Amino acid sequence: MNVRTETRHSIPEHELHSLGLRAFQSLGLNAKNADDVVKVLLLADLFGLSTHGLSRIESYGDRLDVGGIAKNPDITVERVAPALVKVDGANGVGPLVGMHGLRAAMEVARECGIGAAFVRGSNHFGPISPYSYLAAEAGFASMIGSNATTTIAPWGGSDARLGNSPLGFGVPGADGAHFMLDMAMSVVARAKIRNALKAGETIPDTWGTDKHGRKTTDPKAALDGFLQPIGGHKGYGLALMVDMFAGVLSNAAYLTHVKSWVDAPDEPQNLGHFFILIDTKRLGSSTWLVERMRDFAQILHASPAAEESKPVIVPGEIELRNMARQRANGIDVDAAVFSLLQQRATKPLS
Amino acid sequence: MNVRTETRHSIPEHELHSLGLRAFQSLGLNAKNADDVVKVLLLADLFGLSTHGLSRIESYGDRLDVGGIAKNPDITVERVAPALVKVDGANGVGPLVGMHGLRAAMEVARECGIGAAFVRGSNHFGPISPYSYLAAEAGFASMIGSNATTTIAPWGGSDARLGNSPLGFGVPGADGAHFMLDMAMSVVARAKIRNALKAGETIPDTWGTDKHGRKTTDPKAALDGFLQPIGGHKGYGLALMVDMFAGVLSNAAYLTHVKSWVDAPDEPQNLGHFFILIDTKRLGSSTWLVERMRDFAQILHASPAAEESKPVIVPGEIELRNMARQRANGIDVDAAVFSLLQQRATKPLS
Repeated sequence: MNVRTETRHSIPEHELHSLGLRAFQSLGLNAKNADDVVKVLLLADLFGLSTHGLSRIESYGDRLDVGGIAKNPDITVERVAPALVKVDGANGVGPLVGMHGLRAAMEVARECGIGAAFVRGSNHFGPISPYSYLAAEAGFASMIGSNATTTIAPWGGSDARLGNSPLGFGVPGADGAHFMLDMAMSVVARAKIRNALKAGETIPDTWGTDKHGRKTTDPKAALDGFLQPIGGHKGYGLALMVDMFAGVLSNAAYLTHVKSWVDAPDEPQNLGHFFILIDTKRLGSSTWLVERMRDFAQILHASPAAEESKPVIVPGEIELRNMARQRANGIDVDAAVFSLLQQRATKPLS
Repeated sequence: MNVRTETRHSIPEHELHSLGLRAFQSLGLNAKNADDVVKVLLLADLFGLSTHGLSRIESYGDRLDVGGIAKNPDITVERVAPALVKVDGANGVGPLVGMHGLRAAMEVARECGIGAAFVRGSNHFGPISPYSYLAAEAGFASMIGSNATTTIAPWGGSDARLGNSPLGFGVPGADGAHFMLDMAMSVVARAKIRNALKAGETIPDTWGTDKHGRKTTDPKAALDGFLQPIGGHKGYGLALMVDMFAGVLSNAAYLTHVKSWVDAPDEPQNLGHFFILIDTKRLGSSTWLVERMRDFAQILHASPAAEESKPVIVPGEIELRNMARQRANGIDVDAAVFSLLQQRATKPLS
């Protein structure tokens, strides 16, 4: 396969999996830790979320290189109540810490019906849907969130003081058709504003504010300013609440205490996450839930589409469809990412 | 006090409290049940959320009159796991059922660190912030949600299949300054579109769609159509997830299975709610949390306001300020509502 002349190409799942493992092991992670990290990032790639998949080898790798992230941290799990655990990720790679949080929450939730892990000492943990998916596969409904580096101004404010904190929900569906919602709080990502600038177009005044916190239709001014949260004060409130659960309650950093990995790649970020899991088997039989979930999806799908070419979909549908397709035909990987993974994988184990 | 010549006036809290109790008792609720209902609705009025306060005597009363809501239902609480309870409200008044859910969740959360109540057989349970407030006063962080009658089309769809499901979060703050977020999923309420129509103004194309599910700037077309969720597909996803936790997991009605109280006031709605509570004392000392919460609020308040006259605020601040003011000066009540409460209160006990 000639990888150099193509910008994207298809890699079989097992090959990308093994390449990912070798790359993270070459970065110094032991086999078990590399396995956790790759589990999350590979699911992200399978779901089509390639910006949050193995492409992260670049930023994670750079920070591992300069000692900004611990390779094989001593992650601690403290059970502070029958259904409640506190996890300290000791500055490990985000998805490794995330997987420890997820497993700890699963364990207590299995015992108590609902359980939660509050996680500190972490880093960027990938997208949320891989965790929701693993939870749903094991029969758990989930609410999961993380805080993030500051990119949003408080509603009515004029400087970046809160993160575009992602929040995710999952519910086990019929035959693996889990409902998974994974959303950040801005109306659009910065990339969409950059595209408008390149195309010489104005943007809706709901996307961003200028650097003084005032609404703008000028993409340049918005890029110098801040992203606007969905629903204005509502998205602002949601982002705060995610930070409060993920950062404040977990004893992690929050708001402006979260360090930017770009400005200070060699310093711990102390990001926080929360994992709240509900064992759906305690609420009713699997058949009961499967039937309700199938009916729920059918009701939504049956709404006549406003535009004929765009039928109504439910959260998680695109990701699961991408996964099925890419499991059959190979995973779509950017050539530069593939090349970086290969470079990282062929370095001698440190 | 001449109440007939004024459209709004001020009633001392104790007076409104006692009037509310008498009104709901006259509607047939026993003293204990009336107390639960009035506790929630009076807090709503204190917070300034008068559309969700004792004004609800009108719709609740009409449905109690025709037997659409049970006066003194046999509410059951089943503990299905150490930290998980299922509550069946047996078609009681919403805030009564809600208070049973809240107390049941508090009890298991106190024991297990986190606890949840999934509630079915309920009705409109008021706003969420009274529950978040009571939880925060007892040291609990909370995530609370309810489903609702269908008013929103699925994203890309063209008929109403989901409710404007409210979702709320609360975290205990320093000196009673709790963070409380209570939000529905539409960009604006229908009232705001009605006001634009009256004023002869167009509306932003993000507020509503016409009856075919297409964006519109015509308030008339939007009123014939559907409310748009915040952030488009994001708010759609959030509304679904709230319904899935509040309706599907609780074994209540969901989506189009929820009956409209307007079209069928004499039939049970079987609304569902969820209450997830975290005992913050298990995560650290009260001093620890109080200091973090104070710092969190200070960071946000310190962001220079984009418009000088509108300083940055945090979720719950307006409600708590309204409560302090109205506890001191009396609660602002619409004259028609006051008059209806008096009429209901003077009817002989049924």
